[in-house]
Amino acid sequence: MTAVRQTVRESLALYLVMGLGDFAGRQAVEIAREALEGGVTMLQLREKHAPLKQVIEQGAKIRELCRANGVPFIVNDRVDVALLLDADGVHVGQDDLPYGLARNLLGPDKIIGVSTGLWEEAVIAQRDGADYVGIGAVYATGTKSDAGAPIGTSLIAKTAEQLKLPIVGIGGIDAANAAQVVTAGADGVAVVSAITRHPQPKEAARELLKAIGKLK
Amino acid sequence: MTAVRQTVRESLALYLVMGLGDFAGRQAVEIAREALEGGVTMLQLREKHAPLKQVIEQGAKIRELCRANGVPFIVNDRVDVALLLDADGVHVGQDDLPYGLARNLLGPDKIIGVSTGLWEEAVIAQRDGADYVGIGAVYATGTKSDAGAPIGTSLIAKTAEQLKLPIVGIGGIDAANAAQVVTAGADGVAVVSAITRHPQPKEAARELLKAIGKLK
Repeated sequence: MTAVRQTVRESLALYLVMGLGDFAGRQAVEIAREALEGGVTMLQLREKHAPLKQVIEQGAKIRELCRANGVPFIVNDRVDVALLLDADGVHVGQDDLPYGLARNLLGPDKIIGVSTGLWEEAVIAQRDGADYVGIGAVYATGTKSDAGAPIGTSLIAKTAEQLKLPIVGIGGIDAANAAQVVTAGADGVAVVSAITRHPQPKEAARELLKAIGKLK
Repeated sequence: MTAVRQTVRESLALYLVMGLGDFAGRQAVEIAREALEGGVTMLQLREKHAPLKQVIEQGAKIRELCRANGVPFIVNDRVDVALLLDADGVHVGQDDLPYGLARNLLGPDKIIGVSTGLWEEAVIAQRDGADYVGIGAVYATGTKSDAGAPIGTSLIAKTAEQLKLPIVGIGGIDAANAAQVVTAGADGVAVVSAITRHPQPKEAARELLKAIGKLK
């Protein structure tokens, strides 16, 4: 296991999940750059609709920005895209490739995170060897149409108490509620619109880090 | 280049494209088995909605049936799934991974086909080195919601005359119109519902082969 997998827990502090569109006319790479300047500690590209040619082209630019900032770059769902972009890892939902198959393709050194909304899923993720779990949707979210009803912070608390997995909370998290998520036991918060739809992504990232006591 | 790539042209004769559901209660693997018994010469798994765990499980069974029948097994779009299933190749649409990137992941020996609806796309496919092009939608189809308006057989004819690419026609093809597609210049016909929604997939395959003069 390489350094990048060993330091996942710290990298989860402020995890930006972003697609390629819907930024009020701004480019995704611009949002990513400002968010990284603001202190984002991990970045996931989650784009399910754009042509893959565009995903690869834009993703390569964002990937380089992450590398320049020493921030892990993760691809959602598509292991083939992760391989082509030389991503640091993938994030898989319960309907994506199972952890073990993604690991077979990526090898032992990459980060693999798993979306978890149930205690049983968290137990399986730890058993399988996942590097972290994304637990949610913590709060109601308008970003992800299939995120399901919000589950609050109790699964985060139980997972933090009983399992050893690094945890990031996701779903409806912003500067106003981020502290609750970390207090419950999460190693960090994953956000989408709190940064991508903020007029100043850099400031948004700083506010979130401040809210969880990680602003340097 | 291995034998499997060299014989693509002959394998295109009757190309079954299938998902995993919507078979009036029958299992996909059962449809595949009967279709292969009927003489299908190539099979593509195109499933865009089912959980990938299910795609891998069902796909592995269909993959083995193809192997047992000496028929190339192709995966639509997802190169990662193709790698996990040890598929003989992938088929990419214009919004999927570009040919060259799919080739980088799959290596030189696998089959890569490209969907083509315009002359310019066919020219690019040949330039890039695609093993075949799927041209369509030839006729109106209810199977693929994003297939676009039917284009008839003229692009097949032009491609067959001016390019060296193996060609399979796709879109609304059945036993009644299959001969027209081959007469226009296609090396074969790709079908979905003409086999998968037929009460007797084996008979449907035989009828199609008969229609294009390939029934042995």
